[in-house]
Amino acid sequence: MTQTVDFLLFNAHILTMDEEFTQYRHGALAVSGDKIVAVGEQAEIRRAYHSENSLDCGGKVLMPGLVNAHTHVPMTLLRGLADDLRLDVWLMGYMMPVEREFVSPEFCRLGTLIACAEFIKSGVTSFADMYYFEDDVAQATADAGLRGVLGQTVMKYPAPDAASYEEALAMAREFIKKWKGHPLIVPAVSPHAPYTCTPDILRATAELAAEFDVPLHTHLAETAFEVENMRNENGMPVIPYVKKQGLLDAKVLAAHCVHIDEGEMRTLLHAGAGVAHNPSSNLKLASGLAPVTKMLETGLNVGIGTDGPASNNDLDMFEEVRLAAFVAKTQSNDPTSLPARQALAMATRLGAKAMHIGEITGSLETGKRADLILVDLNPLHNSPRFERSPDNAYAQIVYAAKSTDVTDVMVNGRWLMTERRLLTLDEADLLRQADEYARQIDAFLMEREQSVLSKLIALGGSTEGESFEVQAKVKVADPAVVKDALKKPEIQIVYKRHYRQYDNYFTFDEPGQGRLRYREDDSVDAKGKIKNVRERLTLIGENREGEMGEDVLLSRSRYLAPATQSLRFYREYFKPGAEKTIEKERLRWSIKYQGEEFYINLDTVEKPDLGHFLEVKSRTWSRTDADKKARLVAELVAFLGGGEMVTQDYIEMVR
Amino acid sequence: MTQTVDFLLFNAHILTMDEEFTQYRHGALAVSGDKIVAVGEQAEIRRAYHSENSLDCGGKVLMPGLVNAHTHVPMTLLRGLADDLRLDVWLMGYMMPVEREFVSPEFCRLGTLIACAEFIKSGVTSFADMYYFEDDVAQATADAGLRGVLGQTVMKYPAPDAASYEEALAMAREFIKKWKGHPLIVPAVSPHAPYTCTPDILRATAELAAEFDVPLHTHLAETAFEVENMRNENGMPVIPYVKKQGLLDAKVLAAHCVHIDEGEMRTLLHAGAGVAHNPSSNLKLASGLAPVTKMLETGLNVGIGTDGPASNNDLDMFEEVRLAAFVAKTQSNDPTSLPARQALAMATRLGAKAMHIGEITGSLETGKRADLILVDLNPLHNSPRFERSPDNAYAQIVYAAKSTDVTDVMVNGRWLMTERRLLTLDEADLLRQADEYARQIDAFLMEREQSVLSKLIALGGSTEGESFEVQAKVKVADPAVVKDALKKPEIQIVYKRHYRQYDNYFTFDEPGQGRLRYREDDSVDAKGKIKNVRERLTLIGENREGEMGEDVLLSRSRYLAPATQSLRFYREYFKPGAEKTIEKERLRWSIKYQGEEFYINLDTVEKPDLGHFLEVKSRTWSRTDADKKARLVAELVAFLGGGEMVTQDYIEMVR
Repeated sequence: MTQTVDFLLFNAHILTMDEEFTQYRHGALAVSGDKIVAVGEQAEIRRAYHSENSLDCGGKVLMPGLVNAHTHVPMTLLRGLADDLRLDVWLMGYMMPVEREFVSPEFCRLGTLIACAEFIKSGVTSFADMYYFEDDVAQATADAGLRGVLGQTVMKYPAPDAASYEEALAMAREFIKKWKGHPLIVPAVSPHAPYTCTPDILRATAELAAEFDVPLHTHLAETAFEVENMRNENGMPVIPYVKKQGLLDAKVLAAHCVHIDEGEMRTLLHAGAGVAHNPSSNLKLASGLAPVTKMLETGLNVGIGTDGPASNNDLDMFEEVRLAAFVAKTQSNDPTSLPARQALAMATRLGAKAMHIGEITGSLETGKRADLILVDLNPLHNSPRFERSPDNAYAQIVYAAKSTDVTDVMVNGRWLMTERRLLTLDEADLLRQADEYARQIDAFLMEREQSVLSKLIALGGSTEGESFEVQAKVKVADPAVVKDALKKPEIQIVYKRHYRQYDNYFTFDEPGQGRLRYREDDSVDAKGKIKNVRERLTLIGENREGEMGEDVLLSRSRYLAPATQSLRFYREYFKPGAEKTIEKERLRWSIKYQGEEFYINLDTVEKPDLGHFLEVKSRTWSRTDADKKARLVAELVAFLGGGEMVTQDYIEMVR
Repeated sequence: MTQTVDFLLFNAHILTMDEEFTQYRHGALAVSGDKIVAVGEQAEIRRAYHSENSLDCGGKVLMPGLVNAHTHVPMTLLRGLADDLRLDVWLMGYMMPVEREFVSPEFCRLGTLIACAEFIKSGVTSFADMYYFEDDVAQATADAGLRGVLGQTVMKYPAPDAASYEEALAMAREFIKKWKGHPLIVPAVSPHAPYTCTPDILRATAELAAEFDVPLHTHLAETAFEVENMRNENGMPVIPYVKKQGLLDAKVLAAHCVHIDEGEMRTLLHAGAGVAHNPSSNLKLASGLAPVTKMLETGLNVGIGTDGPASNNDLDMFEEVRLAAFVAKTQSNDPTSLPARQALAMATRLGAKAMHIGEITGSLETGKRADLILVDLNPLHNSPRFERSPDNAYAQIVYAAKSTDVTDVMVNGRWLMTERRLLTLDEADLLRQADEYARQIDAFLMEREQSVLSKLIALGGSTEGESFEVQAKVKVADPAVVKDALKKPEIQIVYKRHYRQYDNYFTFDEPGQGRLRYREDDSVDAKGKIKNVRERLTLIGENREGEMGEDVLLSRSRYLAPATQSLRFYREYFKPGAEKTIEKERLRWSIKYQGEEFYINLDTVEKPDLGHFLEVKSRTWSRTDADKKARLVAELVAFLGGGEMVTQDYIEMVR
C-alpha cells in the first residue's frame, strides 16, 4: 500500500540539517499540502509513497531553504547608493534623507518583491525583516510566496510611516492583529535599537509582543561605540540595560551582538533570545568580529543575516555562510572553529530557532513545512566532489558553492522556482520599476550635491536663522580701552559671556557654495572653567550683500544648524575642497545703546596669532533699518576706542 | 579615414582602471592583434576605427580582466578534500600525503585546465602560480589561452617533482629557459617559503631570477607563528631575514605578508617587491588580518590572490575583492578604508604590477595587451544602478556583482568565452576526469583512515622499530632494594639514565587499532636539570602475542616515529576515541646479565599515583630466542628483589 502525496522528490543527496545532521546520499522526500510527510533513503520512501508529481533531482543536493535572520528588504532599492562611508555618514547623510523623501507603501512593496526575487534565486526561503510600512512588506512577501518574520519598526524619531512613536506602536498593534495566524507571515514588533528608543518604547514593544505572543526583532550591541555610550549613560552594557527595561520578557531576535560578553550571552540564553549574526555588514561597516564561537558554545541559537542590501550589498546567504565560518575562525584565532557543518546549521535550523519559527522550518523533518531547495553541484567551481567524510558535502556547499547553483525552491509546499525560473514574480518588470526609482533618487541626490545648502537642509534641523547682519570690526591694540569704554553710562549691559571658540571652516572649489563653519563654543565661567560646550554649523555666503559706508558690512543670510554630528562626520559628508582652523577667546556683551540692541565681541585670535579685535554687530530684518543700524554701529565702534577697520573675516586673514 | 581593426567593442560602460580611473559611460575599445589600439568615448572611437568584428556590448561593463596574484592552480583537484583544520594538520596530514601519492605531470595539467576554466568563467585573465611540474602548468595555461606568471617550486624537502632541491633548481632553470619570451607565460622561480628553504636555496633562486630577469614568487610572513620562529631562530623578522639572504635582489612577488611591520613594508617597497593579499585563505586558516591599508599607504603594489583552491575553496576573484575591502575596513577599524574603487584596482592594475607584468596588462590602455572582460549588471542582485557618482560603478562590481555575471572574456586579443560559453576548453570532459581523480583520492584516504597504522605511515618517517619485546614488570615496595641489587657483581652496567616521562595515550573505539602513545621524554642530568627533550610517537598493539610463563610478556610489534608535530596536531589528525595521561620518573639502566643485554627501568608513577615498578626488558628477533630471554628476564626480576608480578600496562591501571 503506497500513500499518494502531492510531490515526491527522489535521486537527491539530502542534507536534512536535523539535530543529528542525518544525510541520505540517495534520498527521497515526500510532500503533502504544506508539509514534509517523509524523508529518507529513496528505496524506502518510494516503496511507501507515490505521487503524480515525481521529480528526479538528478543527484543534486536537497536541503532546507536558507534562513536569513536579519535584513531590511525594501532597501534593495537603495543598494549601491552610497558605500565605503562611516555608519553615521551613511545613515544620516544618505539613507535617512533619501528614506524621508522616497519611502512609501509603494516603495516598500517594490523593494520587498525585488528582495524576494533575489532570495528565491539564491535559495532563501525564510527571512526576518525590520522596516517601515511593514504591512506592505508582509503583503509583498506573501504574494511572492516566501516565509517572513516581519517587524514593524518603532523608534523615538519620526519615521517615514509614523510621525511619533505612539503612532508607530499603534501601527504595530494593527499589523500584528492583521497578520497573526497567516500561513507564511509571522508578524513582529521592532523597537529599532536601545539608542533610538526610549525606555518607554522598549517596555511598550515588549508588552505588545508578549500580549500577542509574537517575536520582537531589534538591533543590540552592534558597535563598540554603542556599548561605550550605554555604559557612560546608564552604567551598564547593552544587554543588562534592555533586560532592565523588560525587553527580554518578549521572544527576542537580537541582531548583531558584536560587543557582548559571556555574562550577557547567558542572559540572552536564559531569556530564550535568538541572535542574528551579520558578518558582511559587520566587516563592511568595521563594527568588529562577533564572538560567534562563544555564543554557540553558550548554547545560543545564532542565525545568520545579510543585514540590509544597502550595507552588504546583496542578500546572498551563500556568501554570508562562508563569511560566518571565516569570521569565527579569525575571531577565535582557530581554523577549526565553526566548521562548515555548523555554519550551515546556523543558516538553516539555528536561524529558524533564533527567529522563533524553529518548530515549523529550518530542517527537512517529517511534520515541518516543506521549505526546501535543490543545489546543483555540477558546475565547475564545485568540482571535484569528495565523499570520504560526511563533512565533505557541507564544505562543498559552504566553501565552494554559489547562490547561482540553486536551481529549485519550494516554500510551504509550493514551488517558487524551478530550473532557475521564477514562478511567482516577473523579474524584468521589477527591474524596470527599480530603475525608475534609481533615476529619481539619483536626481534628488545630484541636485542636493550641487549645493552645500541643500546638503545641509537634507540633514534636517537646519534653520535660516540670522537672516541679515550689520557688523563692523576693528583691530584693537589694547583690549583694556574697550573694557573701560563699556563701563561708561551710555552703555547698558544686558549680559556678558566668555567663550573659547574653535572654528573649522570648510571651503569648496566653487566659491558660490559659500563657507561652512563648524564651531565649538566652550562657555567659560568666572573661574576659567568650561561650563558648557556647544557645536554649531553655519553656512556663510561668500559674498557680502554690500558695504554700507564707513566699512560697516551687511552680511548675507546664514543657515544655522545645531551640529549634532562630529566634525569628522561633516568633513566626510560635505567633502570640502579645503579646511582651515581658527582658535580664539571671545568676550561677548549683549548691550543697549541709544535704545537699540547690539552684540559686542572682544576677540583675541590665538591660533593663528592675529591679535585683538572688536566686533560690533546688530541684526536687522529690513534693508531700510540697516542704514540706521550701520550708522549706530560705526558710532559705537568709535565710542569703544575705534581702531583700524577690518573688512575681512578672520578666516580670510589666514594664508 | 577610419582604421580597420580586428575587434571593435562598443556600447559599453568602460572602467579603464588606469591611474586616473577614467570611465567612459558610453565607451568603445579597438583591438588589433594582441593589443588595445584605442579606448574612449564611443562616438570618437567609432569615427576613427572600423572592424568586421564589431560587438555591441549592450551597456555591459567592459573592464580589464581580473588578476589573481597568488594561487596554486593544480590544487583544484584537491578542493574540498579536507577543511576546517589547522594549517599543519591540513598540510601534513592531508595535502602532502595525497600530493606524494597523486601529483604528476598529468595531474598538474588537468588541475590547471580546470582552474583555467574556472578563471575564464569568473573573469580572471592573468594569474600568478606556484606549484610542482610547472612546465605542465605552463603548457595547460597556454593551451587554455590565459596569461600566467608561473613559478617552479624549490624547497629543501623532497617534492613530487624533485628528489632534492638541486634537482628542483635545475628544473626551474630549464623551465625558465623554455618559456621565457612566450606571449602568455612569464616563467618564474618559487622558493616555497623561508621556513621550507635553506639560506642557500633563497640565494640560489634569487640569483636564478636575476640571471634571467624573471619574477620570484614566494610565501612571506603568512602566520604569526612563522614570524615568531624566525625571530627565535634568526633574531629578526621575516623580511630582513630574506633580504639578508639576497632574496630581495630579485623581482619578488610576496604572497600573504600578514605579519609585517612598517619598516618591513618600506624594505619591500625599496626592493620593488609586489605583495599578494589573500583574504579568504587568511581568514579560513585564521592566519590573521593583513595590514592592507598600511601597505597601500606605504606605496606597495598590493594585488589580491585566492590562494590555492584547496584552502579557499574556489578561485572566485569577485568574492576575493569584496573580502579584501571588508578585511581592510575591519583591520583598520575604519569603514572608509579600501573603498571599492581601490579594491578593484588591487584586483587589476596593482595586481599586475605586483606580478611584474604591469607594463602589459591590468588596465585598458592603448598599447597594453587586450585582456578584458564584459560584466552584465542586469541580473537582479545588481539592481538598481545608481549613477550619481563615478564610485557607484565600482561599488556595484565589488559589493554586489557575482563572478557569474561575467559573460565574455578576451586574453591577448583572443576570445576565451563569449556569452558564458567556453571557447578553448571542454568543461564536461574536465569534470569527468576530475571525478575520476576524486574517486582514487577518496579510496586512498579511506583506506588510510581505516587504520591508525596507515595514517601513521602516511605522515612519513615512521619505522617498524622494536619488533618484539620480552618484558616483565613487578610492583616494588622499596626502590632501594633494586638499586642495591644492581650494584652486585652479577650485573654489568653499560649506562644509566634518568628521565621524566609524560605519556599521552590515544585509544580508539575499535580496539584492534591499538593504542597510540605520544611520549615526551625529558632527560634529567645529575643535578636534576632537564638537559634534553625528545618526543616520540609509538603505536602499540592492543593484544599481547602471549604470556611466556612466569608472567613474562611478549609484546607485539611497535611502530615508532619521531613526533615532529605537537600533541595537538596528532590529536586532531588521529581523532582518538579517548585519551589518558601518565606522568612518571624513570631510572633506566642498560646492563649485561649472563652475556645478554637488558634494560632495567625503575619507574615511579606519579600521576596517577601508582607507586614504584621494576621493568626488565629485552629485545628479541625470533620466537625461539624469546624463550631463552623470557627465562632470563624472570631470573633477573627475582635477582633484583622480585615482587608482585604485573601484566597490565600502566595505562590499563588508570580508570
